[in-house]
Amino acid sequence: MKEKEFITVIKQVLKSKYIGDDCAHLKDIGIVVSQDNLVENIHFSMDYTDAYKLGYKSAMVNISDIAASGAKPVYLSVGLSLPPNTDEKFIKEFYEGMQNADKSIDIIGGDITGSKNILVSVTAIGKCLNRKISSRKNAKPGDKIIVSGNHGSSAAGLRDLFRGHKNNLTNIHLMPEAQVEFSEKISTNIKRDYAMMDTSDGLMDALEQISQSSQVLMSIDFDKIPYDKSIEKYEDFKDLILYGGEDYQLVACVPEDFRINGYYEIGRVEKGLGIKIDNRTIKNFDNKLFNHFKE
Amino acid sequence: MKEKEFITVIKQVLKSKYIGDDCAHLKDIGIVVSQDNLVENIHFSMDYTDAYKLGYKSAMVNISDIAASGAKPVYLSVGLSLPPNTDEKFIKEFYEGMQNADKSIDIIGGDITGSKNILVSVTAIGKCLNRKISSRKNAKPGDKIIVSGNHGSSAAGLRDLFRGHKNNLTNIHLMPEAQVEFSEKISTNIKRDYAMMDTSDGLMDALEQISQSSQVLMSIDFDKIPYDKSIEKYEDFKDLILYGGEDYQLVACVPEDFRINGYYEIGRVEKGLGIKIDNRTIKNFDNKLFNHFKE
Repeated sequence: MKEKEFITVIKQVLKSKYIGDDCAHLKDIGIVVSQDNLVENIHFSMDYTDAYKLGYKSAMVNISDIAASGAKPVYLSVGLSLPPNTDEKFIKEFYEGMQNADKSIDIIGGDITGSKNILVSVTAIGKCLNRKISSRKNAKPGDKIIVSGNHGSSAAGLRDLFRGHKNNLTNIHLMPEAQVEFSEKISTNIKRDYAMMDTSDGLMDALEQISQSSQVLMSIDFDKIPYDKSIEKYEDFKDLILYGGEDYQLVACVPEDFRINGYYEIGRVEKGLGIKIDNRTIKNFDNKLFNHFKE
Repeated sequence: MKEKEFITVIKQVLKSKYIGDDCAHLKDIGIVVSQDNLVENIHFSMDYTDAYKLGYKSAMVNISDIAASGAKPVYLSVGLSLPPNTDEKFIKEFYEGMQNADKSIDIIGGDITGSKNILVSVTAIGKCLNRKISSRKNAKPGDKIIVSGNHGSSAAGLRDLFRGHKNNLTNIHLMPEAQVEFSEKISTNIKRDYAMMDTSDGLMDALEQISQSSQVLMSIDFDKIPYDKSIEKYEDFKDLILYGGEDYQLVACVPEDFRINGYYEIGRVEKGLGIKIDNRTIKNFDNKLFNHFKE
């Protein structure tokens, strides 16, 4: 995977302790920071979305990164590059969408420039307060693996969009909800270091990242992964659940005796390395993961 | 100017107290944050630069924003979108360039995605520490107007690049230096609120922004603006000095009796509105300012 090779190169050049999780944890300031680029015709198409929904999702994608760290999302900054024919209506609706993603978050500015295609780069800042900040390095054998909700809906929704449909699944794809409350319940109650990620690049990708960073085996019981039954209209719905991406749910590895309201236990962390589903080791699934650099 | 009209719309939608300066000042955390997008074939061309210089300048442009606030630049995050044919060498050199812009600054990660053209969005974080943070709203009649150094070099350098030259001016265009020390001298010594901006969009643009935000008249003595004599080879070098942009110098309005080592006093803040150069009021210069949305 080219993206991962690039990140290896970046780590070699920078020797930075901050690179590895979706958020950088700046302990001296007590904040976490994340940044995501959304590029027209790569991450979204104006054929299927509009300015309001794009603003909404751009904010939400970054709020989700902050939620994955366990911090409280407080500020968003946005670098927006737009084609010359952009009108004021687009700007107005984009920012209304961003603001409505979470009204408790302040949008603090950023940059606005010209461009051939639409480029949105959002930076999110979260406060650590008295919360425990996660790292994908922190999964331990014996932990239970929990998720916040359904997987596969967003990928099925994207297919529905291609077919010109409008339904609950397409809504989930266009306007996902970051799992801010789930994040808060964990990070304010947990006593021990823990691993948490969002499943923006798919559940399997998140499991693989945690496995590699923590050097553990993720043992999953497929039937326990929650999903919306309406995706069963797609024959390969099981692949959508595992590899679909953009559901912006959270997956966490927490102690066996840790309890909060409202989660789905989908498996256990074991000694070893990689991913097992229903006791079958899953190998070489890179080609199923989304890769922007695929040629 | 379309960019400014857009910013007016954004202010109306967000009603955010943070929008107005290049940096947002987050007092509850004690930091300032800025974000800038650099877009291929709008802000730069790979015909004239390379990955190392692009990384260097991308960092420096944002370090300059932090310097303009008076804060200490400490962290950079970068969202990088790159064409599918990008190789590891590009990534390596880009990050080496970023790191070498200021080795005291930590690069904390960000995002890497695909794109048709190169897009670099850098977010910079500065610590306020015991420094006084500037705002373009703070200029007062009686203040002296000071700059940190030469204007016009970068714009002349860009012209030289178009002509295939390589010299001191082209270096200044490709690898500018943010005025971090000048900023620190002011913000750690000044006792009163003050206005400061970088001249990334040109000296006149900065003067106009301060004039509008502070509702004051900026009276400039043209002969006192420092510049590199080698730009006199261009007949319109005076326009390059005033409107050229990308010199990343600082312009500040400080009390008459404020002294630091190493600055150029170029004029005075007076009661009124707008800009006077050598006692002549300058009007309607919008068409001379750089505008990415010009069609």
